[in-house]
Amino acid sequence: MGRTQHRGRFITLEGGEGAGKSTNLDYIRDRLENAGVPLLLTREPGGTPLGEKVRDMLLDPDNSHMSSDAELLLMFAARAQHLQQVILPAVEQGSWVLCDRFTDATYAYQGGGRGIEFQRIQVLEEWVQKDFQPDLTILFDLDVTIGLERAGNRGALDRFEQEEKTFFEKVRHAYLERCREQPHRFRIIDAEQELDAVRRQLDHVIDEFVAAER
Amino acid sequence: MGRTQHRGRFITLEGGEGAGKSTNLDYIRDRLENAGVPLLLTREPGGTPLGEKVRDMLLDPDNSHMSSDAELLLMFAARAQHLQQVILPAVEQGSWVLCDRFTDATYAYQGGGRGIEFQRIQVLEEWVQKDFQPDLTILFDLDVTIGLERAGNRGALDRFEQEEKTFFEKVRHAYLERCREQPHRFRIIDAEQELDAVRRQLDHVIDEFVAAER
Repeated sequence: MGRTQHRGRFITLEGGEGAGKSTNLDYIRDRLENAGVPLLLTREPGGTPLGEKVRDMLLDPDNSHMSSDAELLLMFAARAQHLQQVILPAVEQGSWVLCDRFTDATYAYQGGGRGIEFQRIQVLEEWVQKDFQPDLTILFDLDVTIGLERAGNRGALDRFEQEEKTFFEKVRHAYLERCREQPHRFRIIDAEQELDAVRRQLDHVIDEFVAAER
Repeated sequence: MGRTQHRGRFITLEGGEGAGKSTNLDYIRDRLENAGVPLLLTREPGGTPLGEKVRDMLLDPDNSHMSSDAELLLMFAARAQHLQQVILPAVEQGSWVLCDRFTDATYAYQGGGRGIEFQRIQVLEEWVQKDFQPDLTILFDLDVTIGLERAGNRGALDRFEQEEKTFFEKVRHAYLERCREQPHRFRIIDAEQELDAVRRQLDHVIDEFVAAER
């Protein structure tokens, strides 16, 4: 994918349960829009009618027999559709795309959490994305116990939220490993802080990125 | 996968539209069971509760925007589940498995039909199956025009059946290419013949295989 002056940017939000990603989604969108950036908001798994059907399958607690491999392939099926139908056309036309979770979540949940080797995930990543990667990834990081306490107030748990605490420890560890491997695009938000302090961190990350990219 | 004396065998049925695969499924099953083979009958896409949901998505004419890559990944997601939950345990326990379509159909429809390079399909095949392959593949082959005429009598068309004739020409060509590449496991049935003659061909193929494998 050639990177031209008029190409948009692809920003992803990542983080474990209760990290405040969803709480701050609108805030991030507003900050970008106020900076005059043409923005498309989307999410994974999902982002297309087909992807949302796949999302329902992935989150449905009834699908408890789903194999790790099947789960991973479904994730990338939804992602392939999302890229071709939504993300790539938008970015090519100059729009910025803000995506709630992307491939780093796959490394974190299916890799770290379920134990699929990073190398096997990478085969599918390259198959689907070629060399396409986020320009900026904002990682909401916090202690797993605190995150699960926050997430616990939400009512019924989906298939991922039902996992044990050690699962989420591994998810967090995998996220931080991705961050160490690709530091140029990652910015870590200390999500244990109060909302105001989290937002001051977000302001800084967003303003710096927007200034550098234009 | 180690091949032991007590390991079952994996037989797949392949062919384009109207080739008589479904018509002859029960016949083949009966022939194998009458030979004293413990048999499990299954199909793709599908074969598991999850796989059947994926099958519905793949065949639903409403999903007309599905990208070729997403379609291929969904196929292999259903296949991964099918292998782990059904096929491999059965074969390991000594059962023979008769499967209506398998990976050759992916090469034929998504490769030949949709134009995805065989090499890209092979990456996913190896990712999901490692070195697992059918022991016997029975290919029902016939002229595309005759096949579509036969299939046309079935009522509402699914997403694949709505394709143009040239699509099915490419499907047939890809099946025959697979057959040339792996002749040791393929047996071609001339499906243009009358039902009795088709069944005499099937008798010969099945009896020969059963005799050789025991």
